[in-house]
Amino acid sequence: MTDQPETSGTSATFRAAEQRSAAVEERLAAHPEQFRMLTGDRPTGALHLGHYFGSLANRVRLQDSGADCWVIVADYQVITDRETGGDIRGSVRELLTDYLAAGIDERSTVFTHSAVPALNQLLLPFLSLVSVAELQRNPTVKEEAASAGISSISGLMLTYPVHQAADILFCKGNVVPVGKDQLPHIEQTRVVARRFNERYGVTFPEPDALLSPGGSVLGLDGTKMSKSRSNAVELRMSADETAKVLKKARTDSDRHITFDPATRPEVSNLVQLAAWCEGSDPVTVAEEIGDGGGGALKTRVTDAVNTYFAPLRARRTEIAADPSYVDEVMRRGNDRANQVADATLAEVRDRMGMSYSR
Amino acid sequence: MTDQPETSGTSATFRAAEQRSAAVEERLAAHPEQFRMLTGDRPTGALHLGHYFGSLANRVRLQDSGADCWVIVADYQVITDRETGGDIRGSVRELLTDYLAAGIDERSTVFTHSAVPALNQLLLPFLSLVSVAELQRNPTVKEEAASAGISSISGLMLTYPVHQAADILFCKGNVVPVGKDQLPHIEQTRVVARRFNERYGVTFPEPDALLSPGGSVLGLDGTKMSKSRSNAVELRMSADETAKVLKKARTDSDRHITFDPATRPEVSNLVQLAAWCEGSDPVTVAEEIGDGGGGALKTRVTDAVNTYFAPLRARRTEIAADPSYVDEVMRRGNDRANQVADATLAEVRDRMGMSYSR
Repeated sequence: MTDQPETSGTSATFRAAEQRSAAVEERLAAHPEQFRMLTGDRPTGALHLGHYFGSLANRVRLQDSGADCWVIVADYQVITDRETGGDIRGSVRELLTDYLAAGIDERSTVFTHSAVPALNQLLLPFLSLVSVAELQRNPTVKEEAASAGISSISGLMLTYPVHQAADILFCKGNVVPVGKDQLPHIEQTRVVARRFNERYGVTFPEPDALLSPGGSVLGLDGTKMSKSRSNAVELRMSADETAKVLKKARTDSDRHITFDPATRPEVSNLVQLAAWCEGSDPVTVAEEIGDGGGGALKTRVTDAVNTYFAPLRARRTEIAADPSYVDEVMRRGNDRANQVADATLAEVRDRMGMSYSR
Repeated sequence: MTDQPETSGTSATFRAAEQRSAAVEERLAAHPEQFRMLTGDRPTGALHLGHYFGSLANRVRLQDSGADCWVIVADYQVITDRETGGDIRGSVRELLTDYLAAGIDERSTVFTHSAVPALNQLLLPFLSLVSVAELQRNPTVKEEAASAGISSISGLMLTYPVHQAADILFCKGNVVPVGKDQLPHIEQTRVVARRFNERYGVTFPEPDALLSPGGSVLGLDGTKMSKSRSNAVELRMSADETAKVLKKARTDSDRHITFDPATRPEVSNLVQLAAWCEGSDPVTVAEEIGDGGGGALKTRVTDAVNTYFAPLRARRTEIAADPSYVDEVMRRGNDRANQVADATLAEVRDRMGMSYSR
């Protein structure tokens, strides 16, 4: 705990992170094979269009470009801020089915956090490198603490930034696609890697954030799209279900459709969704709808979503019909993650003077 | 975090722990096979007479009586309150050599903390069951925080009571020999076991403390015997080295030797050591020395220590000459600990709905 922690979110730190992100995007295009990327999700249920356009599509793009993609199903995070996890087993299966349907395939390593003990053991040496004050300064922890009271948050929530460091560093991931709100976590991971390297010898890369090019997607009620708010269009929905939920989407009283996210967020969100699905420009989409009003807009976005996701949904139906395929992907991913985690842990123990076999 | 934590050290809690300890001692005598005991040490160097009479002799007694003894070499605890561990590898070897010389044998399971990933993974679910406030109330953590400042203590130190819970519960230990100052840790472990059982179904025993019958041993300068204070008689010392360090022991100006720990702590400590080694009564030992003064007392205690520890030291020399034996004990212990930890982790993941293989 000698150097200044950089998790407090100074703008200089974040500007530097943004610059590194842009540089990584360039290097990725030229040399994808130099990158191991760690991404993942909490298994809290089926994915929706917010997940897809916010991160999943980008992951598939990076995988297809030749980067080595590791995808963690963060099952322990389900109990970080709630008492019980509900049907975690079912949620994990839905999540994996969505991944595979979206195009994540055997080139990527998909694994569940709780199945990789050597990864989790890294929490102990890493916790010795981070002070309680730093943990309490992490914005995610602070937010949780503000709503629940710092003293009533669990030990798991407080140490959450260090779990993320272990998740990224166990496989020596050097790039992590994130939104801006996740930058403090990446900074904490960089601090852990740097301190470990300084104390015990160079072992880990200091990973760079790759800021997601995807935009954020609003839910049908105009707030952030979230399963828990029942305002989501899920990947797994049928065309009819999609039409039904989009029909309830909030618009506004101006029948002339425009693309103006600042002043007409709900309408513009639907226009943007249609544009993403059609691979077109949202301003053009809005002009084409013109005075058609909310009804024409909803028809347009429904057709666009259903057309774009039809192949994904067809694959999803096939995959869901063959549970053994999902099992096989998970088994293979967990095996590979365990091999890599065991090797990293052996290296870490050796660096720390804790390898005893002769 | 629904029930009241019991780690704040109410006297009622500790009186109850003392009563359970006495009951356990009785049941141990009748049914040792019902007990799995977890003890251990930080590998910070060679053991001394304080360790021996304070705990090690008692462990050997319990092992010999038929209880199932598990002994953890707590290597990660070396980095809990210091930045680097020094020669951990050498310290682990010294510690194991001391154990074996003292009579710990293949009936016990001796293992190193860092070699058992599934044990360490238990930290994650257990951390979800404990609040930050509880962790900060733990007396050991409080003491550390008072000297270092609550915010500058490491995440590893703050979560230390939960590591201990994992160390004890991974093998479903139901009894833990401790001194009174360790009771808060056992209470925290009981709380973790109880909460896990309530939330996910009965999985763990709530372990009882077994208060050590051994006394505390003063160092040669009258303060607590401790390697770091250079006031210790180490098990591994030769007879000559023992005589040399005991010659420097502090006594007092009264040539008439008595056993009166309250008013003559240094003299009484030497009398007590002689009595333990001779298997005699300290009052009798003091009377026999009578007016012989500090010189006669030191001669008596030196002879007693050297005679009592001669067989242990002879074994120690043999064991130290055969490093492969120490390796074999550690390998066997780590294998057994990993088998049991893997089984417990599989059970825990299953209880939590996180077992995904079909």
